[in-house]
Amino acid sequence: MTRKQREAKILDCTIRDGGLVNGWDFSAEFVGALYQALSRAGVDYMEIGYKNSPLLHHVPNAGPWAYLTEELIRTTIGEKTATKLSALVDIGRVDERDIVSRDESYLDLIRVACYIKDVDKGIELAGKFHDLGYETSLNIMAVSHSRENDLNEALEQLNDSPVDIVYVVDSFGSLFGKDIEYLVAKFQKFAPNKTLGIHTHNNLQMAFANTLTGLDQGVTYLDSSVFGMGRAAGNCPTELLVGHLHSARYDVRSLLDIIERQFIPLRERVEWGYTIPYAITGLLDEHPRTAMALRASADKDKYLEFYEKLTTVETHGAHL
Amino acid sequence: MTRKQREAKILDCTIRDGGLVNGWDFSAEFVGALYQALSRAGVDYMEIGYKNSPLLHHVPNAGPWAYLTEELIRTTIGEKTATKLSALVDIGRVDERDIVSRDESYLDLIRVACYIKDVDKGIELAGKFHDLGYETSLNIMAVSHSRENDLNEALEQLNDSPVDIVYVVDSFGSLFGKDIEYLVAKFQKFAPNKTLGIHTHNNLQMAFANTLTGLDQGVTYLDSSVFGMGRAAGNCPTELLVGHLHSARYDVRSLLDIIERQFIPLRERVEWGYTIPYAITGLLDEHPRTAMALRASADKDKYLEFYEKLTTVETHGAHL
Repeated sequence: MTRKQREAKILDCTIRDGGLVNGWDFSAEFVGALYQALSRAGVDYMEIGYKNSPLLHHVPNAGPWAYLTEELIRTTIGEKTATKLSALVDIGRVDERDIVSRDESYLDLIRVACYIKDVDKGIELAGKFHDLGYETSLNIMAVSHSRENDLNEALEQLNDSPVDIVYVVDSFGSLFGKDIEYLVAKFQKFAPNKTLGIHTHNNLQMAFANTLTGLDQGVTYLDSSVFGMGRAAGNCPTELLVGHLHSARYDVRSLLDIIERQFIPLRERVEWGYTIPYAITGLLDEHPRTAMALRASADKDKYLEFYEKLTTVETHGAHL
Repeated sequence: MTRKQREAKILDCTIRDGGLVNGWDFSAEFVGALYQALSRAGVDYMEIGYKNSPLLHHVPNAGPWAYLTEELIRTTIGEKTATKLSALVDIGRVDERDIVSRDESYLDLIRVACYIKDVDKGIELAGKFHDLGYETSLNIMAVSHSRENDLNEALEQLNDSPVDIVYVVDSFGSLFGKDIEYLVAKFQKFAPNKTLGIHTHNNLQMAFANTLTGLDQGVTYLDSSVFGMGRAAGNCPTELLVGHLHSARYDVRSLLDIIERQFIPLRERVEWGYTIPYAITGLLDEHPRTAMALRASADKDKYLEFYEKLTTVETHGAHL
């Protein structure tokens, strides 16, 4: 085991990212059992949902993990283990008055997701959480679409901010090992004071491999989800990360048990993971929303037509 | 596109390796349609089956692609395209008298699979095919279990043989990027005269990533199968390789079409791809046969029990 592997921290985001595929329709028993399983596996953090405000961001029929409250977490988790808890917030969707100080909270880490154009707001928001005593991260989304100089500037700003962790996020699941190496080197160059994290998607079956490439390049925080459950093609599977980093600290058995009992039946009701439409948006370096819409339609297996639609330049009706 | 990418050759082994999961129960129409789809996609080789002898290696109820004949290939393929044809043989299971000379054959490449202990026999056999005019490869299986010095010696022997291509084969799907880099460097050092190939399995969702790592390190022949169809966790998906290397030479559309029409219904009847038991044997660097037996049993989703069985040291009854 290398030093980098010993220092790695696994953050399981099954409830938060997986909630994007089932509308956060997890029972408290499920979430509580997952926390126990992750704790026994030695996973360092569990992201238990979004801390957005239902008044500022209404998702129809969303389950309670889209709008975490301290009361919900308390009744679900009971006594905390060594596994810390995190929540994600989106710029403009969180009401800062909903956030108590860390010593009154079940949460340890608050992660702020934002596009690069909103990095000022993201830093300001994370700064407030920092002042309340939380560990904080800023997750720059859709990094494959950001302009090089904008990204460099944002990283320089982040380097001088109180944000603890800066994340490389492969939102579209379109990145390869070389891209991860390039981005991590850039993040290290422009934000040398910061701890780095990585969040991958599995459109091209690269999520686990890219996470390991990140780790090898010096990234510390590794996002994953159990059985890969996450939006569209899903994430790096927690069981593979834990199984691979297997040591005094990690033990895969409780994850095998909960996958067998809970995730196999769940996967029969809701879909995530590698499918051809997600591979197509990954290859084209596009947001998976068109593929998600396709998978929810009667045309879900019309791959060639979908590909042709995304790759054909529309010329008729255009006045150039 | 890098020079290495331009020189890459994709070898689709769907019928041969995929046949291991459905007993080679492919219709001639299916195989013919796949050849046309691979041809339109620009795939360089199609491995159409095994060229073993049914008298030397009887597999109960095996379809005809386990025992290729020239007549079968002729009636299936008709007129050949630019896509070459290959067959795999196993040491001791092939009757050399079944092999006609290349100018009378539909086959272009004969690949010899052997364990390292049989490398002498493998070289001798490949030499005979070479003398008949075929391109030849030797695929050293289970390389993760071979002794370092045995492998080095075998590679030196291969370097002085008429074999054209030497394959790095990750039989157990247990290798990571670092392992591929290490092995390719070793193969290049001890067999510098040979063109290299790589054949991966997807137990740890590393098949595509490892194939790209091989390519990046200088491997030329890249094995893959459509929709990943291959033994147990399957192989590197042809559609991802073609989609990624997309260029004047490769076009993914015919593959999307055949996956949609043929492989989605097929996948509903037979299983391959990432499942937890295959991940477990991959993590433990073991042959997937125990996991294959589990998946064929009523206990197919008893992951924890399976893991405990494979990792518990049996002490009772042992007389040490």
